This record gives sequence, structure tokens and C-alpha cells, in this order.
Amino acid sequence: MPLAPSHVQQLAEVRSRILNLLLSDKDLVDTLLERPRRETPAEADIHRQQVEEIKQTLPLLHAADIADLLEALPEDERQALWRLIGNDRRGHVLLEASENVWESLIEEMSDRDLLRAIKPLDIDEQAWLAKYLSRDLTGRLLTSLDPALRSHVLEVMDFDRDRVGRIMDFKLVTVRADVTLETVQRFLRRKKTIPDGTDKLFITDKNNMLLGELPLTDILLNTPDKQVFEVMNNRPTSFLIDDKAEDAAGAFERYNLISAAVIDAKGKLMGRVTIDDVVDLVREENDSNIRKMGGVNPEEDVFAPIRKSVRNRWAWLAINLCTAFIASRVIGLFENTISQLVALATLMPIVAGIGGNTGNQTITMIVRAMALHQVEPANFSFLIRRELGVALINGLFWGGVMGGITWAMYGNPALGGVMMLAMLLNLLLAALMGVLIPLLMIKMKRDPAVGSSVLITALTDTGGFFIFLGLATIFLLHQA
Amino acid sequence: MPLAPSHVQQLAEVRSRILNLLLSDKDLVDTLLERPRRETPAEADIHRQQVEEIKQTLPLLHAADIADLLEALPEDERQALWRLIGNDRRGHVLLEASENVWESLIEEMSDRDLLRAIKPLDIDEQAWLAKYLSRDLTGRLLTSLDPALRSHVLEVMDFDRDRVGRIMDFKLVTVRADVTLETVQRFLRRKKTIPDGTDKLFITDKNNMLLGELPLTDILLNTPDKQVFEVMNNRPTSFLIDDKAEDAAGAFERYNLISAAVIDAKGKLMGRVTIDDVVDLVREENDSNIRKMGGVNPEEDVFAPIRKSVRNRWAWLAINLCTAFIASRVIGLFENTISQLVALATLMPIVAGIGGNTGNQTITMIVRAMALHQVEPANFSFLIRRELGVALINGLFWGGVMGGITWAMYGNPALGGVMMLAMLLNLLLAALMGVLIPLLMIKMKRDPAVGSSVLITALTDTGGFFIFLGLATIFLLHQA
Repeated sequence: MPLAPSHVQQLAEVRSRILNLLLSDKDLVDTLLERPRRETPAEADIHRQQVEEIKQTLPLLHAADIADLLEALPEDERQALWRLIGNDRRGHVLLEASENVWESLIEEMSDRDLLRAIKPLDIDEQAWLAKYLSRDLTGRLLTSLDPALRSHVLEVMDFDRDRVGRIMDFKLVTVRADVTLETVQRFLRRKKTIPDGTDKLFITDKNNMLLGELPLTDILLNTPDKQVFEVMNNRPTSFLIDDKAEDAAGAFERYNLISAAVIDAKGKLMGRVTIDDVVDLVREENDSNIRKMGGVNPEEDVFAPIRKSVRNRWAWLAINLCTAFIASRVIGLFENTISQLVALATLMPIVAGIGGNTGNQTITMIVRAMALHQVEPANFSFLIRRELGVALINGLFWGGVMGGITWAMYGNPALGGVMMLAMLLNLLLAALMGVLIPLLMIKMKRDPAVGSSVLITALTDTGGFFIFLGLATIFLLHQA
Repeated sequence: MPLAPSHVQQLAEVRSRILNLLLSDKDLVDTLLERPRRETPAEADIHRQQVEEIKQTLPLLHAADIADLLEALPEDERQALWRLIGNDRRGHVLLEASENVWESLIEEMSDRDLLRAIKPLDIDEQAWLAKYLSRDLTGRLLTSLDPALRSHVLEVMDFDRDRVGRIMDFKLVTVRADVTLETVQRFLRRKKTIPDGTDKLFITDKNNMLLGELPLTDILLNTPDKQVFEVMNNRPTSFLIDDKAEDAAGAFERYNLISAAVIDAKGKLMGRVTIDDVVDLVREENDSNIRKMGGVNPEEDVFAPIRKSVRNRWAWLAINLCTAFIASRVIGLFENTISQLVALATLMPIVAGIGGNTGNQTITMIVRAMALHQVEPANFSFLIRRELGVALINGLFWGGVMGGITWAMYGNPALGGVMMLAMLLNLLLAALMGVLIPLLMIKMKRDPAVGSSVLITALTDTGGFFIFLGLATIFLLHQA
């Protein structure tokens, strides 16, 4: 039986113990993978004991904990741990693990083992995993289902990741409107189980059209002789099967829902969404947002093999190199200016850096406000004026400070003036672009979070060099 | 009655309409704030109609929607909208709004209005808001409560934001272990209501010690003559009142909980945590993580007045300026080298930029893995080797590309070689620091997400300039 969540400390110790055992002893891993190894009988004995220890602690862990462990292990160690997990649990662990982990685990399993691991799962969970199986295996999985379920699975498999259809499940209880609550209670007792996460039953007519919902609490609070239609909520909160999952998640948060019906365009009950799927979605969404901003591929994982990471980061590095090259060519235009006053080369990264910093702050705030649907055409100009105002004040102050320091260091007041003016102008540019870039991305129907940080840095670098060296060429060369 | 969440589109239209009305017409805002204005009678008539329209659409919106609207409005417009919200809803809106918004709204309200707005809230919600009231007002609020509740509120107010005590509520139903399920049902029917988010009752003894939990589904699935202790779960999932809220949230996600008991060190039932508070926490946590990485103050909001933003960003700008200044001084050391070969000034931002990009990618991944508790002393060296491996491959390839381009552009093979070597070394430095910085921050008991991006960029800039210009001084000056 898994440890209760209140045993957070104990749980951490068990996880850490397993990780450390596997990571610190290559021979133990080889033992598990049944590879040839040189070990004394005494060592072999220790390894057997360690295997035994892991086997005995694994049942303490929840499938999600095991998935986390698998993610945190390099390839060999991951396969070694996987061998210790029974077929009855493997399906659930796969469900909780990230796609990166699936791939490497599924690769190593025989088709028969794989089907055996998936079988104990709920039908929606099977459908979810089926997407990642080979076509052949998906076919075998489907033929093993009864026809009604099969069409269900096929339907769900068709939906995009970001639609409600992909996070819904089929585990729901429906009742008719014209029975008494007592009948409902007797029906439930005969059924013997209610699916996890059930806080309400759904009321349908004989064509499976959704009529209303009946919270469990209403069954308990009303006298048993009441009819369902008297107490049910006949304006049930429901989602269309191709609503965006993100919007549904927003509604769950906003209205504190625990479960809600999913219907098709005609109002037929298709399934339900439960809060635990929503929580997973929120977590994943946020996780990928953080990574998107920084130009990290959402599929990248810190324990993936090197070749995978190289492939994942390829594109961003190339883009970054291009933008850096462009910035460098802008400096190249002014090589003549720099050769006359080398101090410019020393000072120019300050102008570029401060712009990048401000631009990134602005863009982070705007992307967030957009995610909260707080940005409307009507407040564009307010946002731009506000960010420009902040940049103006900071530019005058910090530009003044750096201008003064430059003057003092090089004894050149004109250079100090150019420094101050360049910082001010680059901060204004950064603020303006920090608002405009995400707005333009939205207009172009692109995700404003993806790579916005890379883009703004490129602009403020290039802009900063151009402004600073351009001003220097205009104001300083005649004196020099 | 608020719109159902399925009406996502309609909801967006209502919100957008209200925002646009308030943002596009200064006179309407002045009308609402009862300020002197010049308007023709016809205009005044239109404004009255618009006020009427907003008043009629507001009830369609959930308190959370109204809070979002308030956040998206500048100061004057925010106050104007606030005047249209009845005292019966104001408390709920305050609860949903961010602290930034509270401050400006609470400032404008009289003490009596404020108490009146807070009164309809649940006791834990009152305690939550009480933290932000003036000391005087908190006192008045507390004296208006009965003594038992008062001590409850005082207790909750004492907990830090990040503890379970601060997200728990008191709305729970307890029953004794030695009664039948039928008695429980009769008890519930007499009570007439069950708090929102209830999926289970808690079983306590006469000293209020937690003995177990009774899911509502178990009441429905078992025959009424069963005793509570026969069907209850006597290993209830529970949290200590000073457990970290984040850990509790992790357990909710992991174990798909809907509610769980909160106990004190002796096992006495203090309250419960529900999934809706957990969802809010997860969202807030992620939100502040995104901002922390970029060096944005978590309290900053994109519609806050300019002076507030200037104050919030002050510190980060100063830090950034300091690190940029240090990087600049490193370049200053090599002014003599640059004056002999100006191309170095042109090329150096490429070396620095590519390092910053890689460093930020690495640090984003590591901070995430840490948040998932996947980083253990035992896999340190694996992580470092892995990141260095990725950097080595990328450095050799992209360094080779840029080295070749440099050679071709300047016709100087030695300069190309220096470029390649510098890029490779700076990528390795970035990878190493990307792993070490968050690890060191954890060792120093600091949050690895805060400003890590600023720090790594500073290091890769300074390091990049030093490596590139240093190598150039060693290998190129003799030829020059």
C-alpha cells in the first residue's frame, strides 16, 4: 500500500535511496540487466540484497513517484529499474511518465508485455497510450476491445492534444430523470463502485442527451422520495468535445468544479472531465510556458541522452547564432569609428545588456497579461505609454549614472553624453518592442511565449549597438 | 446567475465590451467617479445608458471574472468599475483579485463599507483578507466574531503564506465512528447543506482527534445499517498544519485528492484543504516561477502605476548594470588588443551571446528538474557530464561554422581558429555554470529560480569576452 502523502519526508527518503543505489553501483545495474560482470560471490550477494530491498520498497511508491524516478535516471539505470516493476503496475507508471520516458521503455518491451501492461488501464487511458504505440500494436489493442468501446477509443484518438476530447474520460454514472432518489441509491449499491473523482451523476434521456446533473450531496441532502428531476441541476456546466482544453481548465479553476460533462454538438453526453486531469494539464501548460520563453524545446528532459538534446537545441542555437551574427555585422559597420575610439567597444555591451534586461521584463509581463486575457485593443496604447514611461524614468536615471561614470573614467564629457542618450534610447526601444512583439505574434496567430525572449534580446542587442555606435559616429568623430 | 463556463465565447465578449466601454470614454469614467465634466445632455444620456448596460451585464460574470477585469484596468477606470459592484459581491471579488488590486480598492473604501463587504465571506476567507487590513480594522473585524471563531482566525493569520495552515478552510462535516450510515444520512438531511468541495466527511472522537474519513460515495454504496467505523478509511490522508503548502499540492496532484484533513501535531482535526485552493496555488506558483526566472518582481502587474513599476524593477536594473559594468571592465583590459585588431570588437558579442543562450537553456532545465525533486547528489556528475557533452558537440560544430565564416570574412585563419576555440570554451563554461549555479543556490538555501537567468548571462558575457579577447591576445598579437 502506497505511503500516505503526509509522509512526505519518508517518501523522499525512499526515492532518494533507490536513486542512489542505482546511480552509485554500475554492477547492480548490470545485475538487473543480466549483463556479464565480474563480481566476487560476496559482491553478488550484496547486489542480490539490494535488488531485494528495491523490490520491497517499490510498492510503497505511487505510480507517479515511480515515473519521476524513471525520468531522473540515465538510460541503463532506467531500464534496470523498469525490470523490477510488475506488469500490473507498468501501465499506470507509463501513464504518469513523460513521453521521453515512454519511448525508451516501450522500445525495450515485447509486444505481448506491452499489451499486458496496458490491459488493466481504463479505456480512456488506453486510448491515450495507443497514440504512441506502433500502428500494428494499436490495431491489436483495438481488436481486443468490444465494438462499442473500440469506436469510443477511435473517436478519442482523433482529437488534438489541446482539445477537451483528449482529456475526457468515460467513467461516469448516468441515471434517468423520472426515478426517485431512493431508486438511485439502490442502483448505486447494486453497482457497488463509483468511479474515482465522481462528485455528481449525469441525467440523460433514452437517447443519451444530457438533461442535467445530480451532485452526490443532493442525493444525501434530500429525502429519498424526491424524484431526480425535482432536485437535479438542469443547467449543467458542460463542455463541447472540441472546446479547447485550456479554456475548460480555466473554467474549472474559476468555478471550482470537480467534474463536468462533455457533450457533442447535439447535446449528447460523450464523457466527463475531472479535476485531476485539469490539474495535470495546468502543470504541464505552465511547465512548457517556462521552457518556451527560454527557447527550450518542451520535449527536452534533463536526463535524455546527449544526442537527443543536441537535436532538440539545434534550431534555437542556429537562430541565436544568426541574430548574434546580424548584431555583429551592425558593429562591423562602425569598425572605423571603433578604431578611432576603442572605449566604444568596451562600453557598448552595457547599452545592449541593459536593453535586453528591460525588454525581457516587459515581455514576461505582457505575455502573462495576455494569458489572463487582460490585453484588449482598447488598452494597447495605455500599456505602451506605461512601459515607455517606466523606461523613460529608468533611462534618465541609470543613463545619467552611467554617463557620469563614463565621463569620470575617460575624462570625456561628450562620450558620457552619448552613453546616457544611447542607454535612454535603447531602454525606450526595449519597452516598445516588449509590448509590440507579443502583440504582433498574437496577430499572426502564433504563441507569444515561444522564443519571445530570444527575439527581444536580438533586437535590443542590435538596436543597442546601432544606437550607441551611430550616436558616437555623429557626435564624437569630429572631435576625435 | 453567472454564465455557464461552456459559454466561453459569450463570456469573452461581455468582458471585452466592459473593458472597451471604460477604456475608450474618459467621460464615462468621470461620470462614475462623480467628477465634474463637460458633456451635452445627449452625451450624458449615452453615459447613463452605458452605466446601465454595465450594471446589467456584471451579474453575468463570476467574481473571478470581475477581479480579472479590475486587474486589467488603470487606476481611475478600476475605481469607476468598483463603484458598480454591490457590497454583497465585493468581498468575493476582493478574494479573487491580486494584492495589487486590493490595495488600491481598499484604500478608497470606508471602514464601514469594507467590513460590510467582508462579512458575507467564510471565516477562513475573512482571515485571509484580514492580513491586509489596517490593524485597527482587523481588530474591529475580530471583535465582531464569536470567541471560538476568533481564536480560529487568529491561529490561521499566524501562518506563513507557504504553509498548509494558510490554505486550509474550516468548512467541514465531522461524524462519530459508532453511528450507522442511516444516522449519518439523517444528520446530513437535518443540516440541509454540505460545504462546497466536500467529497468526504471526517470521523473524530469526542476530543476532535481525527480517526478516519468517510467518502460520500461510501455512504451511498453501503447499506444504511452499516456502522461508520466498518466502512471508513482509517488511514486518512492528512497534512500537518505547518507542512509546506507546496508539498501538500504535490500530494493532491499525485494522488488525485479532492479534499484532505489538516491536523495538528497531536492529531487533532484543524480543518481541511480542498482541490480548488490547490489549483489556485499551483497557478500562482507557476506564475511567480516564470517571473522569478526573468528577474521580474512577483508582485509587479502590467497595469500598476508607473511609479510602482519603477520601484519594483529598480533592484534588478541595478544588478544588471553592475554585471554589465564588470563585463565591460573585462573588455577594458584588452583595449590595447582591440585597437590593434578592431574585428575583435565586432566578433566578441557572438561568443558572449551564444554562451548566454546555452546557459539559459541549461539552467531552465535544471531548475525544473530540481522542482520535480529529480536531482540527487548521486546524479550530479551525470548531469554535468551530460551538459558538457551537449556543449562539446554544439561547440565543435557551431564553433567550426563560425570559425570558418570568420576566416572567410577577414581572410585570417588564426582569427577563425580563435573564434572557434572561444565559442567552444564559452559553451562549456555556460553548461558547467548552468548546472552549478542552481546547485549552489540550493546549498545556500536560496530559491534557484530567482534571478538565475541574470546571473548566468552575466557569467557567460564576462567569461565570453575574457576567453575570446584573452585567446586573441595570446595567439594573434604577435602576427598583427
